[in-house]
Amino acid sequence: MAVYTEVPDEELEAFLATYDIGTLMSYKGIAEGVENSNFMLHTDAGTYFLTLYEKRVAEADLPFFLGLMNHLVDRGINCPTPIRNRKGEMLGRLVDRPAAIVSFLEGISVRRPQPRHCVELGRALAQMHLAGADFPITRRNALNVDGWGPLFSSCRDGIEAYQPGLAQELEKELAVLTRDWPRDLPRGVIHADLFPDNVFFMGDRLTGLIDFYFACNDAFAYDLAICLNAWCFEADGSFNITKARALLQAYTQVRPLEPAEIHALPLLARGSAMRFLLTRLYDWINHPPGAFVQPKNPKEYLTRLRFHRGVASPAGYGLDA
Amino acid sequence: MAVYTEVPDEELEAFLATYDIGTLMSYKGIAEGVENSNFMLHTDAGTYFLTLYEKRVAEADLPFFLGLMNHLVDRGINCPTPIRNRKGEMLGRLVDRPAAIVSFLEGISVRRPQPRHCVELGRALAQMHLAGADFPITRRNALNVDGWGPLFSSCRDGIEAYQPGLAQELEKELAVLTRDWPRDLPRGVIHADLFPDNVFFMGDRLTGLIDFYFACNDAFAYDLAICLNAWCFEADGSFNITKARALLQAYTQVRPLEPAEIHALPLLARGSAMRFLLTRLYDWINHPPGAFVQPKNPKEYLTRLRFHRGVASPAGYGLDA
Repeated sequence: MAVYTEVPDEELEAFLATYDIGTLMSYKGIAEGVENSNFMLHTDAGTYFLTLYEKRVAEADLPFFLGLMNHLVDRGINCPTPIRNRKGEMLGRLVDRPAAIVSFLEGISVRRPQPRHCVELGRALAQMHLAGADFPITRRNALNVDGWGPLFSSCRDGIEAYQPGLAQELEKELAVLTRDWPRDLPRGVIHADLFPDNVFFMGDRLTGLIDFYFACNDAFAYDLAICLNAWCFEADGSFNITKARALLQAYTQVRPLEPAEIHALPLLARGSAMRFLLTRLYDWINHPPGAFVQPKNPKEYLTRLRFHRGVASPAGYGLDA
Repeated sequence: MAVYTEVPDEELEAFLATYDIGTLMSYKGIAEGVENSNFMLHTDAGTYFLTLYEKRVAEADLPFFLGLMNHLVDRGINCPTPIRNRKGEMLGRLVDRPAAIVSFLEGISVRRPQPRHCVELGRALAQMHLAGADFPITRRNALNVDGWGPLFSSCRDGIEAYQPGLAQELEKELAVLTRDWPRDLPRGVIHADLFPDNVFFMGDRLTGLIDFYFACNDAFAYDLAICLNAWCFEADGSFNITKARALLQAYTQVRPLEPAEIHALPLLARGSAMRFLLTRLYDWINHPPGAFVQPKNPKEYLTRLRFHRGVASPAGYGLDA
């Protein structure tokens, strides 16, 4: 929720002069995103979104992220379009940081998704998976099952301090996940962070997907499991099977799930709950006291992890197994 | 540089339904302003600016601030126009805070003002002073010469810790300012915080004045002295008399200065340097360690205060005394 880098107007104007997007009329730092500095630009040609990539995003990954958005837009997916400068490049430099301009997407994130939003989400996710199939660049998922163990070890003591007994519980869980993790499911480019924040609606219609900065190559069904966690639990921690069914059915209407994917769903959901539980625990334990950005409470993901552990079959998500 | 209050989409939509400004297409928290939470709204009718007033702004002052903007716009001053809701009110409530919507002004703040910007500023400031003449509400300047003493006393030890000897220097200075302060200069509504951040340009043309949340009734020439400090010093601390002359001449072409105002200018400039020095010292001393919002360094205002102390006559600002 911050702008980390101030952009002097002279530097911004020189940067914009390398683009063909009209004359700048105003720009505002946007209080969103914890990784980068974002600005909304009004020019006489329209509205644009400027991102300065701060150090938490690896510069080597930017051609993947920007190339992917460009690829998806070309295939009809509503996501920000990287704007090329006069040299034809999607990536420039501003205030000594990698910087890119993308088209501004109108739309509003839904804080309390309803089943109708889950239908739109399922359809869009499947369309994105299909559209990314022939994207030529690949990016490893650094936060996949093999990354959870090291992440856990790096903050084991903090986890135990956060909640006595939790380290042991997660250790056992990690052993199960590592042993049983399905490694041969259909895979391709996944969004990997498709929380309600990153999906725009106007009314009930989905108008765009944003924030591809965790996108990577992994199992499609794992992306779906991330969405199950992010969209289908209520504020009180309860699981809403109506939303889950809406999400999964809409997805399968665009991209039918294979039996192995359906079968793996409970385990994938446990894994994706573990992934977000661990990064939230890490941020919770390591954030400087008094820091302005308050880390998200890990607790809700612990509740979700435990829920999925009790799901015996895909029927628990409203799917016929 | 922050948004302090999250606005849930349902609450925002209910709030906007009380206005006649079209359908919301997107809203973004703006990373600007240290007092309030600000959002930029796109609707199908245009762009608007939503402010939630946080606790540092006294609710009782809001009719003055909003009424003033409305009054100035009616008299042709380019500043944000408060939008009335369907009940005709400029002030509503959102997330349990006073909230207002104003028109969005295009334009860019100039980080390094040039003499041509000072010409535009001087003219706009004088126009604002004239336009505010018949504004019926008044607001006392809480940060006037009578407020500096208590402010100084509240952080005397911190000031001495900040720079040994400084408390004594400021004490002497305060005594002179209190003794010699001119109390019968022409007065009216002043902006009182017209820094480059609060003035928009497109190219060389001034397109708007914003942020009236320090506006109050005080001497017009004091407002001018604030601008001398805020616009006419270089980054290296040196005073740029060309900019000062440009500012003052442009001002007097719209609203001629009386001899008493011209004569008082060096003292008013000392006073306005003192006012910003003291509030910056206060913020510097009292900000929580590790706070996200880094307070501004008081040092530049100490340099300015000392400069003005050495100015023998208005000729030091490029004016014929």
